[in-house]
Amino acid sequence: MSKIHDRLAELGITLPAAAAPVASYVPAVEAGGLLHISGQISQQDGQLIKGRLGEDVSLDEGIAAARASGIMLLAQIDKAVGLDRVERIVKLGVFVNSTGDFTDQPKVANGASELMQDVFGEIGRHARSAVGVPTLPLGVAVEIDAIVAVKAG
Amino acid sequence: MSKIHDRLAELGITLPAAAAPVASYVPAVEAGGLLHISGQISQQDGQLIKGRLGEDVSLDEGIAAARASGIMLLAQIDKAVGLDRVERIVKLGVFVNSTGDFTDQPKVANGASELMQDVFGEIGRHARSAVGVPTLPLGVAVEIDAIVAVKAG
Amino acid sequence: MSKIHDRLAELGITLPAAAAPVASYVPAVEAGGLLHISGQISQQDGQLIKGRLGEDVSLDEGIAAARASGIMLLAQIDKAVGLDRVERIVKLGVFVNSTGDFTDQPKVANGASELMQDVFGEIGRHARSAVGVPTLPLGVAVEIDAIVAVKAG
Repeated sequence: MSKIHDRLAELGITLPAAAAPVASYVPAVEAGGLLHISGQISQQDGQLIKGRLGEDVSLDEGIAAARASGIMLLAQIDKAVGLDRVERIVKLGVFVNSTGDFTDQPKVANGASELMQDVFGEIGRHARSAVGVPTLPLGVAVEIDAIVAVKAG
Repeated sequence: MSKIHDRLAELGITLPAAAAPVASYVPAVEAGGLLHISGQISQQDGQLIKGRLGEDVSLDEGIAAARASGIMLLAQIDKAVGLDRVERIVKLGVFVNSTGDFTDQPKVANGASELMQDVFGEIGRHARSAVGVPTLPLGVAVEIDAIVAVKAG
Repeated sequence: MSKIHDRLAELGITLPAAAAPVASYVPAVEAGGLLHISGQISQQDGQLIKGRLGEDVSLDEGIAAARASGIMLLAQIDKAVGLDRVERIVKLGVFVNSTGDFTDQPKVANGASELMQDVFGEIGRHARSAVGVPTLPLGVAVEIDAIVAVKAG
């Protein structure tokens, strides 16, 4: 096992199978030392985590949904380049399915941000944007895309 | 004609004039081997493709709108660096004007994703995020921005 | 004083203190010659600029909010690498808190775009996306993230 896989085991995190490519896009593309990862929708154990913050998803459930999207990002990074090639988590783009009066997107996004720091330590600390959207693919609660700097292969 | 222009001709695609810079921003900036392209709003033959998915734009019309935004991206890439300098389509960011209960953003986004694969083949396969938004500039149905890896000039 | 700080003084712009890191994310990460800056929410003199375009925020107020987010971006760039290391403002991602019938996101975004050109001149001209969202963190009117190419340190 690698160092990061050891750390995942310590944290009790089992990576799911990385979602297979759908249609004409792919989960991740590496170019110029940066790995761009497709938006990962919130799901766990093969079940979509659906709903809208401010409506039928509580703050705690939203944080768990963001963490679940983060775990899917880890699975995609691992499949694309291997987690031990991560040099730095550079940026997360967090989209939170929100009613017009829900304004705690940063707290929701922390579910993914804290995961990255827990798994990678200092190199897991990233830039981030977090915004509300009125709807997401398949009705999920959270979608997160990412940019990761990778060591030369 | 270049290889990619040949391919466009085979597909029966005529590139429109690339939209001119507006105000203080520009259509595309190259840095570090990556070309960042401004969000291209859905339009065809100089007419905006307006409306909202789930309301007054059907799924098929949405797919066509995403394809139209994709064709504008191609026009911008061609003007900025020339289509034959494309090394890889790295990432599309797809924003779909959606009602709160429309959740087929991925199907809409495929209109642009399949275009990229049709035009570029394997190097056209990209990472992607697709989200719903409640409104877009000038009321258009779709806006897409892009990151493209380019060969040294 | 540096060249860009001189220019800020000419424009009568005083940079605020760059917001401190919150939770597990950081304001800016440099990788591969690109600095990715976290989404900066609209605020001025320590006060959030809240509200929604099309509802309780006028177009002029929205433009001022985008400019305020732009000034926070400058403060973050300065803290992270120093403004004089800016080689090019590459991309702004502009999210405008909007009602469903507000479609002037580009005019709002110009508040930040024109600031970048005023401060940096030609190298301040950037690619951009501007979209509407139904809500933003803490209820602010505008959030903007950025990608900046930086000279070797």
